[in-house]
Amino acid sequence: MADITRALVPWDELREAAPDLRAGVYDGVAAPPADLSGVEMYVLPYAKEHGPELIAGMPKLRVLQTLNAGYEELLPLLPDGVTLCNGRGLHDASTAEHALALILAAQREFPKWVAEQREHRWTREHTGSLADSRVLIVGYGSIGAALDVRLAACEADVVRVARRPRPDEGVHGVDELPALLPEADVVVLIVPGGPDSAGMIGARELALLRDGALVVNVGRGPVLDTAAITAETASGRLRAALDVMDPEPLPADHPLWDAPGVLITPHVGGGSATFYPRAKRFVAAQLQRFTAGRALRNVVVGG
Amino acid sequence: MADITRALVPWDELREAAPDLRAGVYDGVAAPPADLSGVEMYVLPYAKEHGPELIAGMPKLRVLQTLNAGYEELLPLLPDGVTLCNGRGLHDASTAEHALALILAAQREFPKWVAEQREHRWTREHTGSLADSRVLIVGYGSIGAALDVRLAACEADVVRVARRPRPDEGVHGVDELPALLPEADVVVLIVPGGPDSAGMIGARELALLRDGALVVNVGRGPVLDTAAITAETASGRLRAALDVMDPEPLPADHPLWDAPGVLITPHVGGGSATFYPRAKRFVAAQLQRFTAGRALRNVVVGG
Repeated sequence: MADITRALVPWDELREAAPDLRAGVYDGVAAPPADLSGVEMYVLPYAKEHGPELIAGMPKLRVLQTLNAGYEELLPLLPDGVTLCNGRGLHDASTAEHALALILAAQREFPKWVAEQREHRWTREHTGSLADSRVLIVGYGSIGAALDVRLAACEADVVRVARRPRPDEGVHGVDELPALLPEADVVVLIVPGGPDSAGMIGARELALLRDGALVVNVGRGPVLDTAAITAETASGRLRAALDVMDPEPLPADHPLWDAPGVLITPHVGGGSATFYPRAKRFVAAQLQRFTAGRALRNVVVGG
Repeated sequence: MADITRALVPWDELREAAPDLRAGVYDGVAAPPADLSGVEMYVLPYAKEHGPELIAGMPKLRVLQTLNAGYEELLPLLPDGVTLCNGRGLHDASTAEHALALILAAQREFPKWVAEQREHRWTREHTGSLADSRVLIVGYGSIGAALDVRLAACEADVVRVARRPRPDEGVHGVDELPALLPEADVVVLIVPGGPDSAGMIGARELALLRDGALVVNVGRGPVLDTAAITAETASGRLRAALDVMDPEPLPADHPLWDAPGVLITPHVGGGSATFYPRAKRFVAAQLQRFTAGRALRNVVVGG
């Protein structure tokens, strides 16, 4: 019995977190342990193609832990009675930081400086700024709050919007968007996915923005109508800085790639270096809770 | 007497700040008023080649106001008895914001994403982050404090260094750099110019940094030894994000332009959009102080 692997984790250093579980390691790249028959808790590899297919070889599985916030694609693979936990909160700092980086890169015209550097040109021209700008955060949850702290430190004027108003937190409801959009210099979309939010920011909403306003999307691609933002940036009226897209990847022949004032990053907001220590601390604590029979965090199915 | 121009200012809207002075406008581009013989207070155009040469035609000049922090080049032109005021503090928010933008662009690999976008490529790869990084601010004055607030909001670990230690503010002295450099992920230079600081960060100091560390300069170009940072980045050992340079402009054939992991902006840190409203408010208040015979702010010579 002493050798039975009771947990499978993606990082070697997590094996020490709960020695009783005799955790094996599967990072989604190298081969997993041969015998998975004793695995009771499986922490999926992060941002790898492989992982979920091993579930079928784990008859004793009790807990499946994903490090993503989204988990819809795991539901069809989840055996009856198995608890599913997600990675809600682990990406907050990374995603908020990426949103800030996109805003600053756009306001301070970094794409232009990168192009100038490539040509060995030193042409001083003054740029916009984030300080003294009004930033609308649409979809004000935990990532929005993390971004808010950063924007306030940058002397921006932050306006908070969520699906339902929360007056005690200074959060407006989305029904107020028609009045709020015309006053914004920057609009940051951090809206969750799903049919309710698809196309939430389309041609009509974009038309309400000031000339030169910046649209940032770090949430879910379909929230922003791709054709509408392509039209508004191709004309030069609006600017955009987008980490998520509809569809992903953006097809190589799509006109948005070359539209002026558009900055594109390939859905890398949540997974920067700062994610890993947070994810490892979280998983170590989950393993310890599992060993001790205590309640797990971030349970989204069962529990 | 009613028509005599008693002040010369760079922006039209400043004329209203002190109507008694009947200010004329000279922006450094369009022609100045023909008769400058009555000018008592001259606010130099900002970031223009022209401006100081008009001083010789102002026999009644009592106050010269520059909007830069540096003023050494004006001293030879300053008539005896004329008070000189500088623009200390007006660039703090803009420069701190640019330093933050440089750090984030480097940590989150924006130069790579801009190049990928140009090629219409969507290749997801995880990046470094600012959160959980240790950032050394070398030259901790008012810009450093403005940067500190921003870095703290970004969950970085900030270490403060100035010429002399100020233990009550948690500021180390530069003599501690040999012990502090090896622990830093990012070093930001905001050191004032002058012979004392030239070459302050050279080959010996850079050699103390960790592999992959990022060197940021937003202060004065000569503080960082150009040959030394070129060698350390050309080899791929260190990274750099530089808004100031020695010499400026960087010659078109300099190898630093193409060194891997180097991001260059052409000395645009202090002059972003957020500078202008702050500068205009400051100058309006100075004009009013001058009219009322009250003490001027930011006096660096005379007064």
